[in-house]
Amino acid sequence: MTSYAESVTIPVTPRTYTEILQFYAEHAQLLDNGLAEAWADQFTPDGVFSQNVKPVPKIGRAEIGTGMRRGIDRIAATGATRRHWFGMVVAEAQPDDSVRTRYYALVIETPKNGRPSIYLSTTGEDVLVRHDRTWLVRSRHVAHDGHDDIG
Amino acid sequence: MTSYAESVTIPVTPRTYTEILQFYAEHAQLLDNGLAEAWADQFTPDGVFSQNVKPVPKIGRAEIGTGMRRGIDRIAATGATRRHWFGMVVAEAQPDDSVRTRYYALVIETPKNGRPSIYLSTTGEDVLVRHDRTWLVRSRHVAHDGHDDIG
Amino acid sequence: MTSYAESVTIPVTPRTYTEILQFYAEHAQLLDNGLAEAWADQFTPDGVFSQNVKPVPKIGRAEIGTGMRRGIDRIAATGATRRHWFGMVVAEAQPDDSVRTRYYALVIETPKNGRPSIYLSTTGEDVLVRHDRTWLVRSRHVAHDGHDDIG
Repeated sequence: MTSYAESVTIPVTPRTYTEILQFYAEHAQLLDNGLAEAWADQFTPDGVFSQNVKPVPKIGRAEIGTGMRRGIDRIAATGATRRHWFGMVVAEAQPDDSVRTRYYALVIETPKNGRPSIYLSTTGEDVLVRHDRTWLVRSRHVAHDGHDDIG
Repeated sequence: MTSYAESVTIPVTPRTYTEILQFYAEHAQLLDNGLAEAWADQFTPDGVFSQNVKPVPKIGRAEIGTGMRRGIDRIAATGATRRHWFGMVVAEAQPDDSVRTRYYALVIETPKNGRPSIYLSTTGEDVLVRHDRTWLVRSRHVAHDGHDDIG
Repeated sequence: MTSYAESVTIPVTPRTYTEILQFYAEHAQLLDNGLAEAWADQFTPDGVFSQNVKPVPKIGRAEIGTGMRRGIDRIAATGATRRHWFGMVVAEAQPDDSVRTRYYALVIETPKNGRPSIYLSTTGEDVLVRHDRTWLVRSRHVAHDGHDDIG
C-alpha cells in the first residue's frame, strides 16, 4: 500500500486524460453491446488480462475475446443487461510513453423487467499504449472486491 | 450494433469534453434539486426528449419541463431523494459543430432514513449544440435497461 | 436552491478540471486503501470537514485523520471493502484562485464474499486550493441523502 505514497507520478496532459476517459467509455460500450471481439481488439496483440479470481491470465486478443464471448453469451441468455462503469481514474505517464492507470469499475446488472443492482465492484490497473490515434491495453489486472486473490 | 465499429469519429477537444462533463454535472444537479424548469431550459427551444418506455417524444422546453415537474413532485412527496449520475461519456464532433454523445446514466434513490439503491440504469444518446458559453440539448434519447422499446 | 440559478460561474480550464478529477480519484483511493492519514494530508493544515449528520465540524489534519481512522478500522474489522466514487463534479474558479466544487459521492460496500451495494449517497461541496503541483481541500461539506441536517 505504501506504493501510493512512494510513487513518483508524472502527470498526464489534459488531452491524454480526456482521451483515456473516452477510451474507457467506448471500451465499456463495446463490451456491453455484446461486441466481445471488438472489445478484445482494444488490447495489444500480446495484451495480458489477469484477475485476482482467476488462476492464470489470458494472453492475446483471441484468448481474451473468446473468454469474454462466453461470459457475454451466458448473460445474454438470461435476458439481463450489464453495464460496466469505470471511475476514479488516476493516470500516470511512464518514461516509455505508456500510461499506467489505477481505477475503480462497477458492473451494474438489470434483469429483464427487473430492478438494477451492483453485480460487482472492482479495482483495475492498466498499462495503456498509444496506437495510431487511439489507445490499447497492454496489460490489465482486475481485482474483485470481497474476494481473496487466488493463483 | 455495428454502428459502433463503422462510425467515423471526429474527436472533440479536451476543452469541449470537459465542458460537456460539467454540463451534464450541472444538468443533473438542477434536476435533482427540483429545478425542473431550469433543467428543461438546458434543451433548445425545439428540443426533443424521447425514451424507449414512452410512446411519443416530448418536444420543446414547456412540454419537457412539465413532464419532469410531475415526476419530481411525485418523488418529493414520498420523501425520497434521487440523484442522476451520467458516466462513460463518448463525445463525437459533427460537421455542423454539434456534438453527438453516447453515455450511461444511473438514477440512485435514497428513501427518507433509508438505504440507497439503484432505481434505474439507462443508456443515453444526445445531440448537443453550443449556445453562448454553454451547451444545450437539441435531442436526447434515453433507453431504460431491462425494458423493451415501445411506441 | 436558487443559488444554482443565480451563481456567476467562472469556468475552470481543462487542465484544472482534469487535475481535480484526478485529485478526487487519488483522494478516494488513499481512503479506500486504508491510508486515513495520507488522505487527511490532502486537506490544508487548517482544513474543515463538516457533515450534515454530525453536530460539529472536524478541523485540521489530525482531527480529520483521527476521525476517519476510527471509521476505517471499524469497517476493516468486518472484512468489508468500501469504495468512494465522486461524480457529477461542477468546478468554479473563484477570484482568489481557489476552486469551489459541487459533486455527488457514493460509497459502495462489498462484504467479504458478498454482493456489493450502495452504503451511502451524498452531495459534497469543497473549496480546493493549489499547493505546489497538487490540490488541497480547504473546506468540505458532505450531506447524506435521506437524512435531515442536525447541529
